[in-house]
Amino acid sequence: MKTAFNTLKLVYLGIDTQKENVVFMRKDCHICKSEGFEAHNRILVTANNHSIIATLFIITNGIIKDGTAGLSDSAYEDLNAKEGDELSFSHVQPVASMRSIRSKMYGKELNDNDLQNIIDDIVKGQYSNIEIAAFITACAGDNLNIHEIIGLTKAMVNSGKKLSWNKPIVVDKHCVGGLPGNRTTPIVVAIITQYGLTIPKTSSRAITSPAGTADTLETITEVNLDINQIKKVVEKENGCFVWGGSIKLSPADDILIRIERALDVDSEGQMIASVLSKKIAAGSTHVVIDIPIGKTAKVRTEEDAEKLRYYFHVVGKSMGIEVKVLFTDGSQPIGRGIGPSLEAMDVLSVLRNEKEAPQDLRNKALYIAGAIIDLANTQSKENGFNTAEKILSSGKAYEKFTAICKAQGGFKEPEYAIYKKDIYADKSGIVTEINNRKLAKVAKLAGAPHDSKAGVMLQTPLNTPLNKGDLLFSIYAETEGELKYAVEYLKTEPNIILIH
Amino acid sequence: MKTAFNTLKLVYLGIDTQKENVVFMRKDCHICKSEGFEAHNRILVTANNHSIIATLFIITNGIIKDGTAGLSDSAYEDLNAKEGDELSFSHVQPVASMRSIRSKMYGKELNDNDLQNIIDDIVKGQYSNIEIAAFITACAGDNLNIHEIIGLTKAMVNSGKKLSWNKPIVVDKHCVGGLPGNRTTPIVVAIITQYGLTIPKTSSRAITSPAGTADTLETITEVNLDINQIKKVVEKENGCFVWGGSIKLSPADDILIRIERALDVDSEGQMIASVLSKKIAAGSTHVVIDIPIGKTAKVRTEEDAEKLRYYFHVVGKSMGIEVKVLFTDGSQPIGRGIGPSLEAMDVLSVLRNEKEAPQDLRNKALYIAGAIIDLANTQSKENGFNTAEKILSSGKAYEKFTAICKAQGGFKEPEYAIYKKDIYADKSGIVTEINNRKLAKVAKLAGAPHDSKAGVMLQTPLNTPLNKGDLLFSIYAETEGELKYAVEYLKTEPNIILIH
Repeated sequence: MKTAFNTLKLVYLGIDTQKENVVFMRKDCHICKSEGFEAHNRILVTANNHSIIATLFIITNGIIKDGTAGLSDSAYEDLNAKEGDELSFSHVQPVASMRSIRSKMYGKELNDNDLQNIIDDIVKGQYSNIEIAAFITACAGDNLNIHEIIGLTKAMVNSGKKLSWNKPIVVDKHCVGGLPGNRTTPIVVAIITQYGLTIPKTSSRAITSPAGTADTLETITEVNLDINQIKKVVEKENGCFVWGGSIKLSPADDILIRIERALDVDSEGQMIASVLSKKIAAGSTHVVIDIPIGKTAKVRTEEDAEKLRYYFHVVGKSMGIEVKVLFTDGSQPIGRGIGPSLEAMDVLSVLRNEKEAPQDLRNKALYIAGAIIDLANTQSKENGFNTAEKILSSGKAYEKFTAICKAQGGFKEPEYAIYKKDIYADKSGIVTEINNRKLAKVAKLAGAPHDSKAGVMLQTPLNTPLNKGDLLFSIYAETEGELKYAVEYLKTEPNIILIH
Repeated sequence: MKTAFNTLKLVYLGIDTQKENVVFMRKDCHICKSEGFEAHNRILVTANNHSIIATLFIITNGIIKDGTAGLSDSAYEDLNAKEGDELSFSHVQPVASMRSIRSKMYGKELNDNDLQNIIDDIVKGQYSNIEIAAFITACAGDNLNIHEIIGLTKAMVNSGKKLSWNKPIVVDKHCVGGLPGNRTTPIVVAIITQYGLTIPKTSSRAITSPAGTADTLETITEVNLDINQIKKVVEKENGCFVWGGSIKLSPADDILIRIERALDVDSEGQMIASVLSKKIAAGSTHVVIDIPIGKTAKVRTEEDAEKLRYYFHVVGKSMGIEVKVLFTDGSQPIGRGIGPSLEAMDVLSVLRNEKEAPQDLRNKALYIAGAIIDLANTQSKENGFNTAEKILSSGKAYEKFTAICKAQGGFKEPEYAIYKKDIYADKSGIVTEINNRKLAKVAKLAGAPHDSKAGVMLQTPLNTPLNKGDLLFSIYAETEGELKYAVEYLKTEPNIILIH
C-alpha cells in the first residue's frame, strides 16, 4: 500500500522546544533512507493536507517504535495533529525569499515585493531560527533606509488581521521603551476613554526588558482577548488594554521578537515597522509616540531621537496616519517597580490618587494623555494636559480603569514574589546617576518577566539624599536560584546607583 | 546531601542533532524550577569538572525518569560524559563578545581584540546557532574592512594549532571555488612533491558546493589524519592531501562553515580570513590562490576578483607570507564529474595520462603547479609550466600520487552510485552556456556531497556540437528519493545547458 510505505504514525513525545518545530525520526527509518534525510535537515511534514517545516532530530536509541515519528509540542500544535495521524515527509525547497536577504547582506536595497515575500514566508513558518537571525541582523542598526522601512511596515500590515471601528478618529500611543517601569499605558487609556475618545490599545510583551505593558496588565486583568472580545470591550468602554500577539495583528513581528530577544538586538527599522504596522492594523488614525532619551535608555541622544522622529513621521504619513512624537526624560526609571507585578502596583497607586504614588509616573501619563487629546482636537483651544489632570484627580479615571478590567474579564490585585533581598547604600550622599540597563538586568536575572511577581522595587530616584545603610532597592524572586543569581550579578556591578 | 539536590543523573537518549548541543530535562524537575529554566534557554551543563553550553528542551511526557536528564549525541561527546554521570546545571552568563557583534550591526569597526574574543568564544562553544548566524550576517558581503579581515585572520590562527616544518620554503595553493569539478589539488600536490617542494596540503569539505577537495579525496584514500600522521606522510613524501578540519588548524572556521552552509552565505572577509589562517597555521610561506571568474562562478566579474586579489595580497603581506593570485576561466565546470566520486574519476584519468582525460582539468592543474614552481623560485629562469608538464607526462606524478595515498592509509578506486538518470538534448545545436550554480544544485539534490558517489557526470562542455537526443549528462544518486528530487528540479530549470 502506497500510503503505508510513505507515511509514519505520529506518537506523542511531550517535548517542549518553545516555538522551534522539531520532528523526531528513527535513524533506521525507511523514509529517512529513501529521501536522504540527515539530522538538522529542514523537512516538510504533512498531516491531513496541512504542512509545516521542522528541523529533523534523529533518534538512534529506540525511544520511538519502528514506523512512527514524533513532533515537538509546537510542531504538534502548528500541524493541528493528533496521536496516530499519518505523517508524510519531503525535502523542503529552499526558501526563495532568503535570496533577497543574501542580496541585502551585499548592500542591495529590498523592495516592497522582496519584503512582502520575506514576511509572508516568516509567517508561514518557512524560516529556520538561523535564517530569521540572518534577516534581523541584515536589517539591524540603521541598515534599512526609509523606503525599506515603509515596505516592511506595509508587508507587516498585509500579513495579519486588520480591525476597523467605524469612527472618524481612533487614537493610540506607543513608548519606544528602554526605560524600566515606564508603565503609562493603563493610566492613559483610562483617562482617554473617560474623555470620550476611542483607544483600542494593544500592547506587547517584553522583548529585552523586564516587563512589557501586556506582562504588567496581566497581573491585574485578562489580556489575551480575541478580536470579538476586544470589539465588545471597546464598544462598551471606548477602549481596552490587551496583548497584541493574541489577535495576530502583526504575526511576523511576534516571530521576529523571539529571535531579537535571544540576540538582544533591537533594530531601528524593524522597530518602526513593528510599531506602526500594529497601530495601522488596529485601525488607528492618530498616534502619539513617546521616546524617552537618556544615557542608559534605549535612545541615548537627542540626535538618535530626531532620526527616529523623522522616520515615524515619514512612514506614518506614507501610510495615511497622523503621528506626533514626544521626547521625554529617560535618565531614570519611571515609578518604583521594575517587573510586571511591581509596575502594576505603581499604576494602581497613581490611578487611586494615593499620596505616596510615584509623581513622575503620574506626570508622564498626564503629559501623554494631554498630547493625545491635543492631537485629536487640532481646532480646539482646550489644554489637553489640564483636561487629563482633572479626569485623573476626580477618581473617574480609576473608575473607568476598573470598568475596563471587568469588561476584559476581571480585576485582581498584583502580588509580591516570595523571596526578597534588600540592598542598602554603602555610603552617605546624594543619588547622582542610575544605570537603567543594569537595573533592568537585575530584575531580569531575578526572573522578570517570566515570573510576573519578580523584579526590583527602587526606593531612591535621582537626587535622593541618603545615609549609609538606607534602603536603595529590594529584589523580588520566585526561586532562591534566581534571587542568588541577581545578587551575584550585583556584586560584579557595584555602581548601578551612583552616590556622591 | 547537597550534590544529590543539585544534580541529575545522565541517561542516554540517542538523539542526533548534528552539532547542536541540546539538554533534555523534565518539566517537573526541581532544578528547572529552582533555577527558573525555560524551554530554549541556554544552560551551562557540567559533569566531571567539564562544562558545555546547551539549549534546553523540556520533556513533558515521562520519556526520562525523575532525577535524570538527557543530552543530544553531540553534547554527550563534547562533555565526554557517560550514562550515570552526575550533571549539574546553571544559567549561562550572556556571552560578552556578542556585544561587539551588536556594535558591528550599528557600523562600529571590530578591533583585533573584539575579533579574538568572538573567535575564542565560538571555539569554546559559547555561541548558539542564531548568535553564529548573526556574526556571519554582520560580516557578510563586504561588511569587513581590511583591518577587520587581518584581525579575523590573526584571531583564527591564534585559536587553533600551528604546524612547523623546519624548511625555508613551504608552498600551498587554494581555489576560491564556485566551479563544479575543479579538482586540481591532488594533481598539483603530486607534481609539486615530485618536483621536490614541500606542500602539506589541507583541504576543506564542501560548504555550499557538491564536493570539497577533502570529500573527493576521501573516495580514493584516507583524509582524516592527525598531526603526527601528517608529519610522517610529509616527511616521507614531501606533501599530503588531508582534511583540514581533523587537525583543528582553524577550529572556528569549521563551526562557522556549518551555519554558512545552512544560510547558503559566503562572506568575502570571512573567506579570506578562513583561507589564509589555514595556510599560515599549516606553516606555509608561499601560497598561490586561484580565482575562477565566470557569470555563474562564485566570483562573477574581474572587478570583484581584483578586490579579492587586493585583500589577499594585503592580508598575506601583513601576516608575513608571499601570496600570488591567479585569475582563471570560470565559465564552465572543469572536468566532467560533479560530486566526490565522479570528480575523483577525472583526477585519476589525468594522472594516468589517459587519452580521454579531461584536458581542461589537466591544463589548469599544470598552470597552477607551474605558478607555484615560479613563485618558489623567483631567481630562476625555469618555466614552471613546462617543468610541471614533464613531470605529469612522464607518469612520475601518478606514481607519487599513489605513494602519498599509501602513506595516508591506502588507495581505492572511486565508484558510481546505484541509481542513474540520463538527460538528453531536446534539440540540435551548439552548447553556448552552462549554468554552474544550477548544475551544482542538481548534483546536491542528487545527494552530493553527503552521498559521495552521487552527482552529475557532464558530457558536453561549451561549444560541443549536438544532435537532438545526444546525452548531455547523467545524474547519479544513492536513493530513489534523491534521484527523483533532482529530476523534478531539472523540470523547473530547462535551461541549465543552453543549446543554440
